[in-house]
Amino acid sequence: MGLTAEVANYITSAKFEDFTPNAVFAARHGIIDCVACALAGANEDLTKILVGFAQDTGSGNSGSTLIGQNMKASAPMAALVNGAMGHALDYDDIARPFKGHPSVVCLPPALAVGEQVEASGRDVMAAYMIGFEVGCAINTGMGVDYADDLGWHPTAPVGTLTAAAAAARLLGLNEQQTAMALSLAASNACGLRENFGTMTKPFHAGNSSRGGVTAAMLVKRGYQAATTGLEGRFGFMHAFSGGRGEDVNKPLEHLGKRLFLEQPGVTIKKYPCCGSTHNPLDAYFALRKDKKIDHRDVESVDVLVDFDPPRSLIHADPHNALEGKFSIQYTIAAALVDDKVGLGQFEGDQQVMRPEIRALMPKINMRRNPGYEGKPSWVEAYNEVRITLKDGTVLAQGQNRNFEGPVVGVTPQGMDMKFRDCASKALPAAKVNEALEILHNLETQPSIAPLMSAVSGR
Amino acid sequence: MGLTAEVANYITSAKFEDFTPNAVFAARHGIIDCVACALAGANEDLTKILVGFAQDTGSGNSGSTLIGQNMKASAPMAALVNGAMGHALDYDDIARPFKGHPSVVCLPPALAVGEQVEASGRDVMAAYMIGFEVGCAINTGMGVDYADDLGWHPTAPVGTLTAAAAAARLLGLNEQQTAMALSLAASNACGLRENFGTMTKPFHAGNSSRGGVTAAMLVKRGYQAATTGLEGRFGFMHAFSGGRGEDVNKPLEHLGKRLFLEQPGVTIKKYPCCGSTHNPLDAYFALRKDKKIDHRDVESVDVLVDFDPPRSLIHADPHNALEGKFSIQYTIAAALVDDKVGLGQFEGDQQVMRPEIRALMPKINMRRNPGYEGKPSWVEAYNEVRITLKDGTVLAQGQNRNFEGPVVGVTPQGMDMKFRDCASKALPAAKVNEALEILHNLETQPSIAPLMSAVSGR
Repeated sequence: MGLTAEVANYITSAKFEDFTPNAVFAARHGIIDCVACALAGANEDLTKILVGFAQDTGSGNSGSTLIGQNMKASAPMAALVNGAMGHALDYDDIARPFKGHPSVVCLPPALAVGEQVEASGRDVMAAYMIGFEVGCAINTGMGVDYADDLGWHPTAPVGTLTAAAAAARLLGLNEQQTAMALSLAASNACGLRENFGTMTKPFHAGNSSRGGVTAAMLVKRGYQAATTGLEGRFGFMHAFSGGRGEDVNKPLEHLGKRLFLEQPGVTIKKYPCCGSTHNPLDAYFALRKDKKIDHRDVESVDVLVDFDPPRSLIHADPHNALEGKFSIQYTIAAALVDDKVGLGQFEGDQQVMRPEIRALMPKINMRRNPGYEGKPSWVEAYNEVRITLKDGTVLAQGQNRNFEGPVVGVTPQGMDMKFRDCASKALPAAKVNEALEILHNLETQPSIAPLMSAVSGR
Repeated sequence: MGLTAEVANYITSAKFEDFTPNAVFAARHGIIDCVACALAGANEDLTKILVGFAQDTGSGNSGSTLIGQNMKASAPMAALVNGAMGHALDYDDIARPFKGHPSVVCLPPALAVGEQVEASGRDVMAAYMIGFEVGCAINTGMGVDYADDLGWHPTAPVGTLTAAAAAARLLGLNEQQTAMALSLAASNACGLRENFGTMTKPFHAGNSSRGGVTAAMLVKRGYQAATTGLEGRFGFMHAFSGGRGEDVNKPLEHLGKRLFLEQPGVTIKKYPCCGSTHNPLDAYFALRKDKKIDHRDVESVDVLVDFDPPRSLIHADPHNALEGKFSIQYTIAAALVDDKVGLGQFEGDQQVMRPEIRALMPKINMRRNPGYEGKPSWVEAYNEVRITLKDGTVLAQGQNRNFEGPVVGVTPQGMDMKFRDCASKALPAAKVNEALEILHNLETQPSIAPLMSAVSGR
């Protein structure tokens, strides 16, 4: 049996009980975080445009809820809008083996299809967890250039397969149909890093969710595709790896044998900006604990990172909030000036244009840890911030990436706080509480309809 | 100005008058052929599934006609369905510099958007021609592995940009918006050759048409993307070339300076199967002119082709009609047994399972012209068929690819015959005549509404 068929076998046969309490704990965090981020992104400009597009292209009044919009649409359209909304602020979770953002390509498809088929909370969670494991497993077999050199937004191409896995599971596709849905999704995947720092980065998450749902729905209706879309000579892994270093045997070394959700689990973001800024920001705030730093005293800042710049942080001179999210210069400058990096630092394009920010940005240099240039990303897991003050003082702080699972970056209390903070941007307080209560008990819900009603914005 | 901006400048500023009579002649053939193929594909299983999907995902009753379906839908959905329908039989036109099928990614987006904005026939033709030129020009800059090694279905990724170009033009996007639409479309492109011989190959054409229309519509509403999506370090040309040999300067050597529509123009297919089978089939039928060949006398057939097999012809042992379209073994066997390769040879999966066909297929070997192994495709333009009979006789016939433009493969009378043959599968005779009459005079039509009415199937 080939890889696509084996993956399809896993998707159709995995059970909720296969997931350990730690894995379910991680999944719950990923799901709560994803809904939180979607609600926080519900009023963003890009969301409004997509909602208008959904209305005008005739998808209104189907059965899948658009989060925070008082509106339903077809499942593919809901997956598109909710996925983009969940990624709008770049505040959503990360999984290291996924090399990107798992929940925005696992949950929106699971919710959109789950609502159509009247699934239980447990079934939706299972689809989410299965999508998560499939995405991580496939990623282990992708060549290094998939995430590094070629320019793919790693969340997106594999994310389309992830979304197809979740949707196929909930639609009850059999093994062969699931293999076809994966192959069809493989032909409907994309996302280029050149669009980072624009509305199109969040579009990638939504479009991957949409593409996976579309693939599964079409196959459910009898549409046919290859059953070798992943491993084939002209399939996904070869094409998206640029023909360099893909290993079609690797995914099955992991899938169903270890749980990525358990180790390394999910990382919940503390800062609403590109994940590649997080270690440097952690290093900065660790430094800051011991000593107040006045940004006017700063002569220069060196940021050592564990990838060859620019990779994701492609905006050294950002001119608007979205570009600022993909700028080590802006995020470190904001930390220096504002002493925090939260939603407020990205509200309005004028934030990145403040004179004190613009004075600092040219002083901030990003480079790779010496000796690692040209090597794959994610190998060092060590970042460092070195601040040289005008009086010659050097303040330096290293930061290792935290590999402990299953949930990194947030405490349970912190998760609830983040949810309330984000959700309050789109929901009244009573609905915030109702949604959070349901999310904490998702696996016991006979239907996800009450959850969708609570987050619908009605 | 970067490539994306330059291409956007061309899209917004090119005029109908920039196209020579020969180019318009080629465009007319491409357009007539595309409508013909869509009508011939209107009742295919894959079309029915997509129409049902369009109905169920709530896109009914918007303003763009689904060809032959008595139904309208949103512009992206109409582009999806019409594009897939036009490619369903793999009978639609080819353009060599496009390395694939131009019209199914130029015309469906132009018709879908054109109908929404109540465009004239002249405007729709201009959008089609501009999309054609943009697609061919970008293709000249793609590395060799884009079309050869990596497994992309060449029609599809560049086709998404082509569709965006046509849609952006008709929506009246300005230069910056058009650059953004191209960049957004670049993040929404795919199509893998692994799915050749399944319903998913035609899906690629429809999905590219849909993706381009979606990109242009979103930008029209204010959605933002990079303006460097083609040439950027992490953009389309690098990613889809696998980082191997892309040349971001090449497209502008051609765009607006020479007309691909004029030379080498469009190639109209004589056989409803993969373009890579056409030269061998031409060779066979040339051979057959001089001597009747009884398939029971055949010992072996060697087919020399100008690409490293299997590339597009990935089904040496096809088991259904769609796989048969991507099989040199089946198409040559059908030519030997039936003395023709027409729509009938692909009607029903049992055609490829006939005993006399299955007896022949293992005797048919495809290999590359000796000495060219490992070189880029499309360099030799020489194919050969060598038939060894059981009595030892060898019959051999070479075939050069015809590079003469602007229209190859059909006479004007032949074009009308193909149209009538194809269109009669979905339209009554009066509508066939009406549609053909309009198509022959498309540039003088004040509106495309009468054309869409004629081909709607009502």
